[in-house]
Amino acid sequence: MKTITQLKTLRNILCPLKRTGKIIGLVPTMGALHEGHCSLMRKARRECDIVIISIFVNPKQFGPQEDFDRYPRQKKKDELLAQKENVDIIWHPSVDQIYKKDFLTYVEVERLSGLLCGKSRPGHFKGVTTIVTKLLNETTPDILYLGQKDGQQALILKKMITDLDFNVKVKICPTIREKDGLALSSRNAFLTEQQRRESPILYQALQHAKKDILSGERNAQRIIKKIRAMITKTTSCTIDYVVCVDKETLSPLKNIVGSVMIALAVKFGNVRLIDNILLKV
Amino acid sequence: MKTITQLKTLRNILCPLKRTGKIIGLVPTMGALHEGHCSLMRKARRECDIVIISIFVNPKQFGPQEDFDRYPRQKKKDELLAQKENVDIIWHPSVDQIYKKDFLTYVEVERLSGLLCGKSRPGHFKGVTTIVTKLLNETTPDILYLGQKDGQQALILKKMITDLDFNVKVKICPTIREKDGLALSSRNAFLTEQQRRESPILYQALQHAKKDILSGERNAQRIIKKIRAMITKTTSCTIDYVVCVDKETLSPLKNIVGSVMIALAVKFGNVRLIDNILLKV
Repeated sequence: MKTITQLKTLRNILCPLKRTGKIIGLVPTMGALHEGHCSLMRKARRECDIVIISIFVNPKQFGPQEDFDRYPRQKKKDELLAQKENVDIIWHPSVDQIYKKDFLTYVEVERLSGLLCGKSRPGHFKGVTTIVTKLLNETTPDILYLGQKDGQQALILKKMITDLDFNVKVKICPTIREKDGLALSSRNAFLTEQQRRESPILYQALQHAKKDILSGERNAQRIIKKIRAMITKTTSCTIDYVVCVDKETLSPLKNIVGSVMIALAVKFGNVRLIDNILLKV
Repeated sequence: MKTITQLKTLRNILCPLKRTGKIIGLVPTMGALHEGHCSLMRKARRECDIVIISIFVNPKQFGPQEDFDRYPRQKKKDELLAQKENVDIIWHPSVDQIYKKDFLTYVEVERLSGLLCGKSRPGHFKGVTTIVTKLLNETTPDILYLGQKDGQQALILKKMITDLDFNVKVKICPTIREKDGLALSSRNAFLTEQQRRESPILYQALQHAKKDILSGERNAQRIIKKIRAMITKTTSCTIDYVVCVDKETLSPLKNIVGSVMIALAVKFGNVRLIDNILLKV
């Protein structure tokens, strides 16, 4: 396994590999790797000749009041984990290399980027689509592996890749959870013991909603109300949103029908957590 | 020479060529080919194994009041010209293929896209950078050939390619002119005889400015005033802008020094013409 920090070096390695027809898989990450990332690396390892993970805490996807500075960074630990998963290349560029001081170019998926998390985090998805465009051009993958945990992000990136004709297949992989249901996230480490104890209710509420829908409930407002009630009754967190939306367009549903995503975002103190489930109704 | 209209077909041809290490050159055009385009094709032919020209009148770079509908289209004539220049592939997709009805993704070079032509044509360069991103992903060129006639466009695309880490070299080639100095443009065909007779003053005024600067003039305002006076005195056109700017940042210069672009845009009736010269002072 090689950790590469210079674009020139990366290209010198990848260009000849591309020419011999090797299939490249990319797992983009911000580091602080956990079992969620590992599941993506393992899938990439099974399906590709060359597995690249990128580690880059992207300042452009954090708002000025957000947690860019305190986002966990653990280079050594990440390298050990990636090695264990037989990753070939860690692409680990510096912020200065990625964003030169006269950087001016942005990629944006309109409409979708302004909904759900995009409402509370203006500019967030513009930062995500811009960095992922750069990562695609740098690492030239055949397959991009994303996690369903960041459901809106995965949808937006898939749309970007289709719209801009990137020759990349997107594979969206299931959310990995703690035993008690909490979706894995690098930010879970910031929860207090009390918040951590309360946090499984998020997934439990989503599972309850699923059960209600499978039992015939079709009224989105009632579903949302019940999820909100379950969360507020048992935790100290504040709810950013709970929505039932069409899985592709993110348009809110009145009646639960079709390919549905039920998604939520909450804040435990200043720790923002998200989760979602997909349903075919 | 092949004219290709389907992305799948294009990829099936290009992927194996890329693998054998062939150098691909792309000349992006909106068709209505003239000697300016031909000079780019010839340069690409000298330098590349595979020469692709794209022909696509891009609706996203025309404003609602602009000339998208009457922009000249002459497929047969263009094919003959491209064949004469030994082009390998004409990439000629339909508007419906390029912009599916739920298209949402845009690429934008901020700041630079709002200046000069961007001021009078809001959204124009956003349309240009978006389509060229798509063309790059579709045709995977090693070298992109652009004309200096569209100086701001060339600068913006170069910036986009650098910022987004596209692995593409940009070559900007000199403006080709009629014998009397008028810069070649597909829109020249729309000039009346009278306007055509008046139009060489644009380049003459730029050449005068150059002579003045070489003789020691450094005051940008005086240079601009003189150019405007020459144009208004002898033509019926209305001036959109005349500027002396830094060639890289497009910032207006007070004193003419460094790498300078003197650029102008005018309208003869509803025919918009642009021209520019570069100087090192």
